[in-house]
Amino acid sequence: MLTPTPRLRSVAGFGLRLKRALVRDISKPRSPSLPPHLLTTDPEDILGDPDIQLVVEVMGGETPAAAYIRRAVSQGKHVVTANKEVMAKHGPELISLAADKKVNLLFEAAVGGGIPIIGPLTKDLLANEISSIHAIINGTTNYILTRMAGEGISFSEALKEAQELGYAEADPTNDVEGIDAAYKLAVLASMAFHTRVHADDVYREGISRLEAKDFLYARELGYAIKLLAIGRGGGDSVQLRVHPTLVPQDHMLAKVDGVFNAVEVEGDLIGRVLFHGRGAGREPTSSAVLGDVVEVARRIRSGSEPAPTLELEASRTVLPMSGLTSKYYLRLNVADTPGVLAQIAGIFGDLNISIASVLQKDVDPATQTAEIVVTTHPASEEAMQRSLALIEGLGAVRRINNMVRIEDWPVT
Amino acid sequence: MLTPTPRLRSVAGFGLRLKRALVRDISKPRSPSLPPHLLTTDPEDILGDPDIQLVVEVMGGETPAAAYIRRAVSQGKHVVTANKEVMAKHGPELISLAADKKVNLLFEAAVGGGIPIIGPLTKDLLANEISSIHAIINGTTNYILTRMAGEGISFSEALKEAQELGYAEADPTNDVEGIDAAYKLAVLASMAFHTRVHADDVYREGISRLEAKDFLYARELGYAIKLLAIGRGGGDSVQLRVHPTLVPQDHMLAKVDGVFNAVEVEGDLIGRVLFHGRGAGREPTSSAVLGDVVEVARRIRSGSEPAPTLELEASRTVLPMSGLTSKYYLRLNVADTPGVLAQIAGIFGDLNISIASVLQKDVDPATQTAEIVVTTHPASEEAMQRSLALIEGLGAVRRINNMVRIEDWPVT
Repeated sequence: MLTPTPRLRSVAGFGLRLKRALVRDISKPRSPSLPPHLLTTDPEDILGDPDIQLVVEVMGGETPAAAYIRRAVSQGKHVVTANKEVMAKHGPELISLAADKKVNLLFEAAVGGGIPIIGPLTKDLLANEISSIHAIINGTTNYILTRMAGEGISFSEALKEAQELGYAEADPTNDVEGIDAAYKLAVLASMAFHTRVHADDVYREGISRLEAKDFLYARELGYAIKLLAIGRGGGDSVQLRVHPTLVPQDHMLAKVDGVFNAVEVEGDLIGRVLFHGRGAGREPTSSAVLGDVVEVARRIRSGSEPAPTLELEASRTVLPMSGLTSKYYLRLNVADTPGVLAQIAGIFGDLNISIASVLQKDVDPATQTAEIVVTTHPASEEAMQRSLALIEGLGAVRRINNMVRIEDWPVT
Repeated sequence: MLTPTPRLRSVAGFGLRLKRALVRDISKPRSPSLPPHLLTTDPEDILGDPDIQLVVEVMGGETPAAAYIRRAVSQGKHVVTANKEVMAKHGPELISLAADKKVNLLFEAAVGGGIPIIGPLTKDLLANEISSIHAIINGTTNYILTRMAGEGISFSEALKEAQELGYAEADPTNDVEGIDAAYKLAVLASMAFHTRVHADDVYREGISRLEAKDFLYARELGYAIKLLAIGRGGGDSVQLRVHPTLVPQDHMLAKVDGVFNAVEVEGDLIGRVLFHGRGAGREPTSSAVLGDVVEVARRIRSGSEPAPTLELEASRTVLPMSGLTSKYYLRLNVADTPGVLAQIAGIFGDLNISIASVLQKDVDPATQTAEIVVTTHPASEEAMQRSLALIEGLGAVRRINNMVRIEDWPVT
């Protein structure tokens, strides 16, 4: 991937020379293969070599990558990284270190694979005050959700399929629990809202509670279900969350299927703009990494300083989830007896939650149970959580199967 | 729009001062209003003022804008323009002049309104060899087509509606004949394929021949109808065309509705990436223009040279339409008598055109006519044009109502 090609030479303005590659195991076969003298297992061969101007970090994970990047930047080396975890946990510190050292630290590949999104946020869209981000930025979960919606299969079946296809790892926790998406949202939000966001600032729910019937009911109500990463900025605060979300079927994000990613950005001038493409994989990641490499090379050639770094303001307040206002989708298993709905409606009414629709499903004469699907008008998350606790205590309620937030922003 | 705002000051790194605005009529009320001493009707007050570092051109049209831009660049002024016609007709010359004069000539607003597309093509996606562009880059026609598809209304009804809403001009020729889209495609193709494309290199067909029933039949066949701007680059040639196109319903471009624009770019690394947003209007255009202004301001501040200009190679060969291979949709009015289809199939067979599907529609016992809708497998445009001439000569064929090309590229 980093072998200098004629195309790279042409767009960079000069040939790039690969001096060293840090690997764990020199004897492992690689494609494309590299001459053995370029390989090393000692990071000092790179970080301590004053001849090396640019370090590309694609090892992933926080440790030791964060320390390597910090060291490289401190030594005055430009860095191009694909590391979302490092940027989500140490981004603001590293960005400001790079500005001090007058080197470039570029990380387009950290979010959305090869989809240009960091570039547009930090350059093309700079004149905008960004108010929101809605993103599908984990291909593994989007593949799983697409299969559950399309084939009516269970979460575990879809996960198994994704693992067999190489879309999901043996331990899928990072993807299915939304950890990977939260890292990426932290990076996006830092750039979009010009503030210091840490991975821990992002509220997070995974997709494993979803069942095939949730997709059926959602469709009946006019929605798709996606794992959305949502960031909103307003005044001095930001709201950051990753969770399964009901998305209106006619919205472009509802149409993002399989392993594709998409990021929708809303700004005061641009309105809504959406970026869609392959969010992972060897080639798309190469596209983003090499795009950054070319940018650094061009700056080195023209003797120009690094692009001005965004001033990341001291953290805006991260709003707690309890302060959220949202619509909700609720699926409950209840005794099929008169009056259950009245009890539930009573609890909602007391807490100022207004019901938008009720569907009664799967009446089972044998167990005398039924499934009720309720959607609400915008309500406070705090009230919704309190109502769930009360509803769970009702004698006629067997089980709260699922609660999914609805994001119902207008299409225009 | 160009009043320096705190936001612009913050992202540019310093305050921008608006020195002069060239207008046709000083007495005309403006919003936001400008102090009268900033207004002038004499271009020399701007082009001849050595204090002015940056000229923003948003007047539109080829004359006198092209001359003004040329003059400004020659005087060593940076230029930001939203002018697709100038860039489609004089872009390569002006870009190379700007490189000689070491000034920036930026034109993000010329294509796709505020959607970042020139930026990604010339920066983020540079490591890619771009093979194709598929774009919906005229909001007026996309609005008209969306209304025809959704409401079953005629072209003239939809056009009238678009005019009433201010989406179409009193003389809609530039939009409905694809001239505006051809300008934008010429600019996109120059940047994507690193070559000199002129507006006249683009083959062009407008949308006025489409009828409501074409949308019905297309939907039955699994397609939407869009005015696509298509560019393909391969080897030493390019193929450039703007025409109504049948697009598979499950493709993202089929889902771009109303006045929205979208550009899909395919590269060897990135695969397909799509940019979607508002392609016109005051605010989106401001987003792009001001993004470019900020970029110039940052470069001035950091004392850095203009970004390296793309080397636009001497023109690649523009392939003639006769060399195109495409699938086709054909709607014919024929006598409702046995043997007509056999005659048509015979002509196709002789010319090596293979039929994919046939629908018989609207049999009218009174006039003894029927409508036949034929789609083909990939065939040569030259053969298709010859077959149309022969089919038109058949006694049983009353009228060839429409021929629309089908673009059936895979979704993945």
